[in-house]
Amino acid sequence: MPAGGLDQRSGQLAELAQITHERATDPRVGEWLAACESDAELTADPASDAAVNLRWWRHSYDRSTKLPARLVVAMSRATSAGKAAWAQAREASDFKKFAPSLEHIVALCREEADAYGVAAGGERWDALAQGYEPGMTAQSVAEVFDPLRPRLAGLIERLREAPHPPSDDFTRLKLPQDQQEVFVRKVAKAIGFDFSRGRLDVSTHPFCSGTHPGDVRLTTRFADDNVNDALGSTMHECGHGLYEQGLPAEHANTPRGAAVGLSIHESQSRMWENQVGRSAAFWAWAMPQLKECFGSAVSRFDHAAVVGAANRVEPGLIRVEADEATYNLHIMIRFALERALLSGDLAVADLPEAWNAAYRRDLGLEVPDDARGCLQDIHWSMGALGYFPTYTMGNLYSAQLFEAARDALGGAQALDDQFAAGEFAPLLTWLRENVHAWGRTHDSAALCLKVTGKPLSAEPLMRHLEGKLLPLYGVQA
Amino acid sequence: MPAGGLDQRSGQLAELAQITHERATDPRVGEWLAACESDAELTADPASDAAVNLRWWRHSYDRSTKLPARLVVAMSRATSAGKAAWAQAREASDFKKFAPSLEHIVALCREEADAYGVAAGGERWDALAQGYEPGMTAQSVAEVFDPLRPRLAGLIERLREAPHPPSDDFTRLKLPQDQQEVFVRKVAKAIGFDFSRGRLDVSTHPFCSGTHPGDVRLTTRFADDNVNDALGSTMHECGHGLYEQGLPAEHANTPRGAAVGLSIHESQSRMWENQVGRSAAFWAWAMPQLKECFGSAVSRFDHAAVVGAANRVEPGLIRVEADEATYNLHIMIRFALERALLSGDLAVADLPEAWNAAYRRDLGLEVPDDARGCLQDIHWSMGALGYFPTYTMGNLYSAQLFEAARDALGGAQALDDQFAAGEFAPLLTWLRENVHAWGRTHDSAALCLKVTGKPLSAEPLMRHLEGKLLPLYGVQA
Repeated sequence: MPAGGLDQRSGQLAELAQITHERATDPRVGEWLAACESDAELTADPASDAAVNLRWWRHSYDRSTKLPARLVVAMSRATSAGKAAWAQAREASDFKKFAPSLEHIVALCREEADAYGVAAGGERWDALAQGYEPGMTAQSVAEVFDPLRPRLAGLIERLREAPHPPSDDFTRLKLPQDQQEVFVRKVAKAIGFDFSRGRLDVSTHPFCSGTHPGDVRLTTRFADDNVNDALGSTMHECGHGLYEQGLPAEHANTPRGAAVGLSIHESQSRMWENQVGRSAAFWAWAMPQLKECFGSAVSRFDHAAVVGAANRVEPGLIRVEADEATYNLHIMIRFALERALLSGDLAVADLPEAWNAAYRRDLGLEVPDDARGCLQDIHWSMGALGYFPTYTMGNLYSAQLFEAARDALGGAQALDDQFAAGEFAPLLTWLRENVHAWGRTHDSAALCLKVTGKPLSAEPLMRHLEGKLLPLYGVQA
Repeated sequence: MPAGGLDQRSGQLAELAQITHERATDPRVGEWLAACESDAELTADPASDAAVNLRWWRHSYDRSTKLPARLVVAMSRATSAGKAAWAQAREASDFKKFAPSLEHIVALCREEADAYGVAAGGERWDALAQGYEPGMTAQSVAEVFDPLRPRLAGLIERLREAPHPPSDDFTRLKLPQDQQEVFVRKVAKAIGFDFSRGRLDVSTHPFCSGTHPGDVRLTTRFADDNVNDALGSTMHECGHGLYEQGLPAEHANTPRGAAVGLSIHESQSRMWENQVGRSAAFWAWAMPQLKECFGSAVSRFDHAAVVGAANRVEPGLIRVEADEATYNLHIMIRFALERALLSGDLAVADLPEAWNAAYRRDLGLEVPDDARGCLQDIHWSMGALGYFPTYTMGNLYSAQLFEAARDALGGAQALDDQFAAGEFAPLLTWLRENVHAWGRTHDSAALCLKVTGKPLSAEPLMRHLEGKLLPLYGVQA
């Protein structure tokens, strides 16, 4: 959007927020819900389509009616201004330009959390997180993150001292963007993205959006000297897109036909990006494609060099450029900071200092400026506090679901053979049947238990990372 | 949109059409209008902001309330399906695939025209045309077109027999698209498009859209071997965009701040594309820019070659690729055909034959297939019957307004000197003050009379075409 459009857009979004809120909180909706709930037949089977829809519509209605329209409109206006202020501050790499907006947004978030209501023993963060991942609380996240952090730190430390880290020469190779596009489209098609029900375009920040399983829009991005970024972005967004295309179209526009939550959504993107796209088996198939697309430009790279480049671990400042192992540390830092902002333990003015201290402590890096520090992510400027942990929850679900798929599809060797032969349909079919088809029938934790037989744990992710990275770095397991 | 998204999109558009229609026809709107109209002070000066808004809101309300909601929804669904059917038929170059959709759309258009009501002595076409150009009737269009047709035909005939038609070698030159983009962006900026209040992107069919003078979105297109297409498309859409950016922002979202109609809108795009962009004076400025952007690739072309290429007249099958002189014949053919479709004089099944006969008669061309014939334009598939003549009306207004601007700015030589020096601000300022700033204060005919002192006539366009083209072709005037 050009700068001159900000006022009009802010006004439009605020108007839409108000209209949507009015409709969502119409007392007649409450009457309809109560009438349905009093029908024992409708709710007898909690996994029935009717019961699922009723439960989620009730959830949305109860949440919406707790918010005064005034606050909805104020949040819409504050985040419209906030996103613009963030973009300018990031451009100038000056947090002070964004601080007043963020102050305002955090104050409104607190008000919002208080309007939703904070459960006994809970905290404001929990109330906001329900909007992204129903059931998730700061406590439940901490219980997963706390044991994960030292194990990840230990792994990263061992890799840092490894005898032979893989080279990233392949990643940094200059390759024409139009050829990169041919390559990533080929991969997208091979893993099952249906182009008659979706598109792949280009944007600065890759995303997946869409309104229906028949219309799923992905974007990716290209840099002359980073084909792995284009590939990773494409496979990541394809993972989101495959989930959206796999939702039951006959239940479109109802909770029964919607994605269960952001964590499971992220598990799908991460699985195709990481468990598939960074595997040796995938590259056994992809190497010939690569040679076909880029010809002599890639002839000096063999399978080992390309797999090594895809799996290089190196602490960095930027979350969206992070490798599989260090990525989760970026999330843990954000989780701790937004929790402290909401509780009041951290003042907005002190955010850069706290951010930089965390990067020094957890990643061993000095943050040189705000643009590469606390201004790098758009989320908080959109009022999205309580969102970040879903990224790491997604990594955890991804690893755990992938182990279940592997066992169901004949074990690691069988799955590797399939990938190496370019056969990704068995995995996709398994995901369709075990994850996508359910829509919101089960919440994330219940779905995980049902499909994998166990509650979410850090073990599968650590098994995946250690099992792949330690041998690659020549470290004794 | 991917094919799989059609049903969902159709449903959404129909739902929006219904909601919009419900709001637009709310009886309270009628009460508010009546209350305002009874306030003599508000309407005392018909050019006051309040009177202008009231008049146009009344116009819209009266039109909307004549349409039953059922018809609005039916039209929305029919045109969603129609656009898809048209695209498929065009792809297959087979009118029969589109005919059932068009039958349905024409039937709904007739129903719509009858609902609006046909004035005594008028015809259905008039009722539909009001939606694009209030005040325009088939009769008034015919009165302009009938004398114009033989004069254009005579000019084209004289050019066809000319001693030395200009070469189009420059137009067909292969030039890299990224350099073309630099060139057209430079031109867009030079003629005054404000990039802080708008964008320029790429699409298959160029367009201008936007929601506010502060947020105007243009697209253009690029072909390796047609820089004049990219330049013409860009200047054309910039003309629309300059009008939108010039509308009074303080009256945004009201008729007082809206464009007067499609004909005047088109006059603005055509003026920058044709009166400016195809002039010798413009190219005196643009030649150095061209050489700077494309270097040695264009060194063999001089000013005369480039101006000649920009003004080559050659009857062709495709409207959007037509030159300044033959373009209007394409419009006249469509006008006659859609008028006959609505009156019932022409059956949908007979459209291809009638189309091809008209091209044979008026342009001397055999139409080889439907894709290059009656399937080339999207308009009818959108239910937009009554729209095409605004393109030629735009050409006429463009020529007449340009003559007035020229006289006000010191005459032809003074204006040429300004263009040759890259000074386009005087023309834009004149347009801002005399056209853009008025919004809908005056209708098109009244605005023309007020600004040029005369009713719309074919003379200025013919003077422009004959004055430029005959000397260029070496024909005695």
